[in-house]
Amino acid sequence: MQIAKVIGTTVATIKDVKLTGRKLLILRPTDEAGALHGKAYVAVDTLDAGIGDLVLTAHGSSGRMTDITAGSPVDAVIMAVIDHLEVGGKVTYRKE
Amino acid sequence: MQIAKVIGTTVATIKDVKLTGRKLLILRPTDEAGALHGKAYVAVDTLDAGIGDLVLTAHGSSGRMTDITAGSPVDAVIMAVIDHLEVGGKVTYRKE
Amino acid sequence: MQIAKVIGTTVATIKDVKLTGRKLLILRPTDEAGALHGKAYVAVDTLDAGIGDLVLTAHGSSGRMTDITAGSPVDAVIMAVIDHLEVGGKVTYRKE
Amino acid sequence: MQIAKVIGTTVATIKDVKLTGRKLLILRPTDEAGALHGKAYVAVDTLDAGIGDLVLTAHGSSGRMTDITAGSPVDAVIMAVIDHLEVGGKVTYRKE
Amino acid sequence: MQIAKVIGTTVATIKDVKLTGRKLLILRPTDEAGALHGKAYVAVDTLDAGIGDLVLTAHGSSGRMTDITAGSPVDAVIMAVIDHLEVGGKVTYRKE
Repeated sequence: MQIAKVIGTTVATIKDVKLTGRKLLILRPTDEAGALHGKAYVAVDTLDAGIGDLVLTAHGSSGRMTDITAGSPVDAVIMAVIDHLEVGGKVTYRKE
Repeated sequence: MQIAKVIGTTVATIKDVKLTGRKLLILRPTDEAGALHGKAYVAVDTLDAGIGDLVLTAHGSSGRMTDITAGSPVDAVIMAVIDHLEVGGKVTYRKE
Repeated sequence: MQIAKVIGTTVATIKDVKLTGRKLLILRPTDEAGALHGKAYVAVDTLDAGIGDLVLTAHGSSGRMTDITAGSPVDAVIMAVIDHLEVGGKVTYRKE
Repeated sequence: MQIAKVIGTTVATIKDVKLTGRKLLILRPTDEAGALHGKAYVAVDTLDAGIGDLVLTAHGSSGRMTDITAGSPVDAVIMAVIDHLEVGGKVTYRKE
Repeated sequence: MQIAKVIGTTVATIKDVKLTGRKLLILRPTDEAGALHGKAYVAVDTLDAGIGDLVLTAHGSSGRMTDITAGSPVDAVIMAVIDHLEVGGKVTYRKE
């Protein structure tokens, strides 16, 4: 899974019928301390994540293994909202 | 999903039989404001997207989860045409 | 799908039994004008593509969605031979 | 599979219901001698791996091919804990 | 498929039960002439490949399409041992 930060939202009227009502958030990958790196991508939110949250996203067919995304043309899903990360015995990120 | 801009079209007479009648568009990835980055790729259009549109593409097996692409040898599909993107409380892209 | 140019051939006597008789071509990715970039990879040819042809390849499980590759341990297939590409209203590539 | 080192842990209260009780570890890719390179990612631990262990992770749908991850929205799993690696006739890594 | 060179071996006592008896080799990607580039990865050997051999590996779900890897948590398999490669009418690699 990718550690990523929610940075924005998308609005799309014209979309595959299976995406009706889905929340599509913009994310950017982060390192193990929540620092941004890499390019933005979009994932379906199934957990009511908020802007600024650090989350985990599952990709590919695994992105369809939630009740909300099953059978849909989506390849990334937010499947966890991170409370905290710990590396080397130290907390590197804690949700505010 | 990848945020991408439609930049062109492909014509291919010799192709897998399941691709007959499919529209194959050329796209380039963009960032969360619609600025191009990265290399061109090709996706099946299922939504009558136009040149210059910003869209979302789903990849891998998820690219086959539309009525049009089911069971076909395609690994990318346009599954949403973006109206606008919002990052940090500001609109970073709006469809003209 | 990846736009790619066919640059060579492979011969492999020792291979998975499902690959018997399959033509495995060497390709390199190109941009939207057919200019090479990126590293070589190998795909199964199902369309009798020739050296120098510009083609589209589908990857991952989508590479198994042709009659020839179904159920085989292959992750890339040539599923279209490109006639021409058009970007910004201009033809950027035309098959000779 | 990716050779990777376990560097940390994640805690997430809000997550997909299928992830309840799953251990989500932070890893970084390593080369064939265990030297770190590349960005951190998260995988499900099914083998009680410890911080500092060198492991192998399987990705994509293959990450769901363990009893613990079957049907879950996860795209990476630790499926082996490495005892040692050998390259060019020399041991490049040995578990302490 | 990736062209790759077998450079080493792994030993792992603790592993998913479906991997019992599987040979896990270390590889590095090569270009179309067998020159190394890119980072090491690990694939299941189903063809008794040897150190120094140039091989093809299939990735993702395609890595599970051999009798030996079916249903296992592995995402890369050696499915061909290369005899020779030919690019531009010249042999760029020949197995010794």
